[in-house]
Amino acid sequence: MITKLQVKYIQSLGQKKFRDETGVFVAEGPKIINELLAALPALLVSLYATSEWIQANAALIKRIDAIKITEVKGTELERISFLQTPHEALAVFKKPAALPFSFTGTLSLMLDGIQDPGNMGTIIRTADWFGIRQIVCSNDCADAFAPKVVQATMGSIVRVRLLYTDLMELVATNSGLQMYAAALNGTSINQLGPVREGIVVIGNESKGIHPALMERCQHRITIPGTGHAESLNAAVAAGIILARIGN
Amino acid sequence: MITKLQVKYIQSLGQKKFRDETGVFVAEGPKIINELLAALPALLVSLYATSEWIQANAALIKRIDAIKITEVKGTELERISFLQTPHEALAVFKKPAALPFSFTGTLSLMLDGIQDPGNMGTIIRTADWFGIRQIVCSNDCADAFAPKVVQATMGSIVRVRLLYTDLMELVATNSGLQMYAAALNGTSINQLGPVREGIVVIGNESKGIHPALMERCQHRITIPGTGHAESLNAAVAAGIILARIGN
Repeated sequence: MITKLQVKYIQSLGQKKFRDETGVFVAEGPKIINELLAALPALLVSLYATSEWIQANAALIKRIDAIKITEVKGTELERISFLQTPHEALAVFKKPAALPFSFTGTLSLMLDGIQDPGNMGTIIRTADWFGIRQIVCSNDCADAFAPKVVQATMGSIVRVRLLYTDLMELVATNSGLQMYAAALNGTSINQLGPVREGIVVIGNESKGIHPALMERCQHRITIPGTGHAESLNAAVAAGIILARIGN
Repeated sequence: MITKLQVKYIQSLGQKKFRDETGVFVAEGPKIINELLAALPALLVSLYATSEWIQANAALIKRIDAIKITEVKGTELERISFLQTPHEALAVFKKPAALPFSFTGTLSLMLDGIQDPGNMGTIIRTADWFGIRQIVCSNDCADAFAPKVVQATMGSIVRVRLLYTDLMELVATNSGLQMYAAALNGTSINQLGPVREGIVVIGNESKGIHPALMERCQHRITIPGTGHAESLNAAVAAGIILARIGN
């Protein structure tokens, strides 16, 4: 049984302002929740699940304080879900602690104005696949802890460090960094070998990378194509570049 | 000024049944509409656009019969749009004529149960980037002419041939075809050279490729990753594979 106060609280977490104030976020669906619970049980704040899910996951939840768990009916789940079709369980987690960033000896990602939540989440998931541990995001990127983004990360949200910041300031204070800008008129990625240290920069879905930031990138890299599409989706481009230079 | 009958007609095109009966589909936003109008003006059925768009695109529309063009206000566009934020123009186009498929001497894509409209559209756009001309889709794939899919293709929908069919039947009647299944336990794509003839098979977002279809694939191919994500997004995987073996 879910209370009106709980419904209101969870709905408020659809807004970045409330997520920032409370330091928590919403995850939905058995796949992501099971993964987060197994990896980071201490971050669980509250869990709303159907009796079927609770029975099927008895082993996973047996060490969780029962006060955190609310059994709900499908209709109740619909009231709190951010999905079109709610999926057995919804949980509120604390955001993982912010860990320090270091660009030395590692390949990182930089996102300049990625707006679409699906793209944002897919890029985080893709980075996790290729072992990229850090993503620097401009302040106008979609919030990584928005419900749709968390959903698209498929659990990778807690394994990749994210830093929202002013990209020009960050670049100014890290002047030796080798930056690889995804662009339409650069060197073919097929001519590049693995890159052990540096930052791959992916720009906004329609406008690309800001000109001022592009000027600071020593390398412009391009995914060669023989067809007629004008461009690639930002998450697909990130995946192709990481597959080529990130391994 | 838009009539109730027009609103009802356009809204009905959100349903596959009506798209199939009428043979038309909806495209939205200046980028896609401009591209479709420039490439295939004869396919335009009707166009609803703001006065600003009409003025800015005078050259593009000067040979189009004025009866097809309706000037609308922003509020009217909201009533017919399938987007959260309507974008200056919405158009109804005839579907391009179905062209014959041939698997000889070319690399094609096969999609087994791609459900998400965004993934479907992104895969079509990615195929177009890499010069892939044909995509075979299982009958349970998202309809390529659904508004959200068309949007995600960014115009590539009219440049890539699509065939919805029973995949097992198609494979049975093309027994010599070399099929490359995207899987989690196959040969690394980094060990493959360009593939000049064959079909890359991408499976459903959560279940992958049907076991019966997988059995018919001579090659299982895998995108190597050093991180911890369980899998990649279907469209990202398709992009990475095509970047490696499709060029």
